Amino acid sequence: MEESHFPTLNDIRFAAVRIKTFTHHTPILTCSAINEMAGCEIFFKCENFQKVGAFKARGAANAVMKLTDEQKSKGVATHSSGNHAAALARAATVAGIPSYIVMPSNAPEIKKKAVKGYGGEIIECEPNLQARETTLEAVVKRTGATFIPPYDFMDVIEGQATCALEFHEEQDDLEIIMAPVGGGGLLGGTALLTHYWDPEIEVIGAEPTGADDAYRSFKAGRLIPQTKPNTIADGLLTSLGVLNFEIIQKYVSDILLATDSQIIDAMRLIYERMKIIIEPSCAVPLAALLAKKERFKGKRVGIILSGGNVDLGKLPF
Amino acid sequence: MEESHFPTLNDIRFAAVRIKTFTHHTPILTCSAINEMAGCEIFFKCENFQKVGAFKARGAANAVMKLTDEQKSKGVATHSSGNHAAALARAATVAGIPSYIVMPSNAPEIKKKAVKGYGGEIIECEPNLQARETTLEAVVKRTGATFIPPYDFMDVIEGQATCALEFHEEQDDLEIIMAPVGGGGLLGGTALLTHYWDPEIEVIGAEPTGADDAYRSFKAGRLIPQTKPNTIADGLLTSLGVLNFEIIQKYVSDILLATDSQIIDAMRLIYERMKIIIEPSCAVPLAALLAKKERFKGKRVGIILSGGNVDLGKLPF
Repeated sequence: MEESHFPTLNDIRFAAVRIKTFTHHTPILTCSAINEMAGCEIFFKCENFQKVGAFKARGAANAVMKLTDEQKSKGVATHSSGNHAAALARAATVAGIPSYIVMPSNAPEIKKKAVKGYGGEIIECEPNLQARETTLEAVVKRTGATFIPPYDFMDVIEGQATCALEFHEEQDDLEIIMAPVGGGGLLGGTALLTHYWDPEIEVIGAEPTGADDAYRSFKAGRLIPQTKPNTIADGLLTSLGVLNFEIIQKYVSDILLATDSQIIDAMRLIYERMKIIIEPSCAVPLAALLAKKERFKGKRVGIILSGGNVDLGKLPF
Repeated sequence: MEESHFPTLNDIRFAAVRIKTFTHHTPILTCSAINEMAGCEIFFKCENFQKVGAFKARGAANAVMKLTDEQKSKGVATHSSGNHAAALARAATVAGIPSYIVMPSNAPEIKKKAVKGYGGEIIECEPNLQARETTLEAVVKRTGATFIPPYDFMDVIEGQATCALEFHEEQDDLEIIMAPVGGGGLLGGTALLTHYWDPEIEVIGAEPTGADDAYRSFKAGRLIPQTKPNTIADGLLTSLGVLNFEIIQKYVSDILLATDSQIIDAMRLIYERMKIIIEPSCAVPLAALLAKKERFKGKRVGIILSGGNVDLGKLPF
């Protein structure tokens, strides 16, 4: 199989340097109460403390900083109502270039506010995928902006991989590393970097049962798109990307599932015991681990807490 | 004035070593968005990540570990429905000795559960101060346990002072250090250590307007007890202690006030921008700072985030 289109370890190291001044080196936290409950030793990489409150700051910064001056002068564009929108708007503003964010008209006011706060220009469209794509096309045509996809894009995957690089550099004895999987940018980047770092370390994805396309695709060996996702983990509703699936098939050893009630329990555990705020998507790896403790018994497990953007007025407990 | 009864710098350094294996070295976090809003540079010492979720773990551990073997064999006792109760129960269990916690019968079930979870024995009493004191006396008489008061006690103040020691050791350029004030254990310990560390550093207490006895006592130069406190900052309802007031009068330069609505705004800011969970009492210093920005303009300010034990189902937003 031809893999020359994958970023190399050196590429990822360069990306880490490229985005260093625009992102946080996030802390790793542990919690003895959770370790005791889980029967293993867990290290949490806190991307909820990342700029814009999510790991997405890494991929967006990397993609923007890699543009040519010519491209930069015309700005960047994307369609997203989530963390990628905020991350891209911020990265563009930091780089001093415009960003055009296509958002469904029914996107929560708080998400629109965040994008505007980071300096992005919002273009509203009908709330369906078709409208998002045609509106984005029109914006790109009008402005000449470069489209930066949220996950199915190598420069974004390369940026997300810097998280696992930091993780292994600081905690170099992990036996397993886990990340949630939605589009697969974080899990793909984590798997690729971890393969370079030490192929003996197991990479495990975690997904909600209510949006389990990565699980099904992984088991079937072919990409099966997500239809009608239904889960509290609102950052993981999307279908797995093509490039992401390619990496995941090669370098991920397993994908585990968690139900919404397990996700809520794990989320609450992290809030109460660790005193940190995470979004529901973030709790999926711990939920999947706790649902399958025997698989992790006595191991040193790294979990990437992907983000902390949650409506505090609507916590599920 | 005779101060030989105050712990010395060396005493506090010994206390830090004494409690080292039983407590966390908590991280210091910063937040550029809050700095921008405040017009100064703020460093947050995260005691919400401390064992039992509050700085109280320090004082309780120090007091328990300083007991003689004779005293230890009979255990420890206190009356408290808050973080001190959990902290003392845990410290006693770690030391392998019994703890007797007198709690009002109407104390929240979650608080009782925490104390039991840490291995404490709960003795219920009528919900008034008189009943708490007589019940405690009876328990001490029956068991021979040593009473460890929550704040008006030098070994506890010495333990709380280790927090400021860690803070200055790691962040040695603070110009101001702030802590909330209830009974005054944390503020007293902070003021004493900071005076030893560098008397040029200003120590400022922060108190809710709805329980402002420390403010009034400080201004009047005599201890004025708190009657009918009314504030969301439920960790700061108690009256200032005698020893604590003595230290505060000498080494604290100011006490500032914050209204409940300012406290809630500051709490929300910390949740949303820093993605960490704090209890309302914790937000009082930031609230007081934001209410009086000009006093802090351009300074490097340390704020001790005292604890993170909050009922997530009852957030004020």
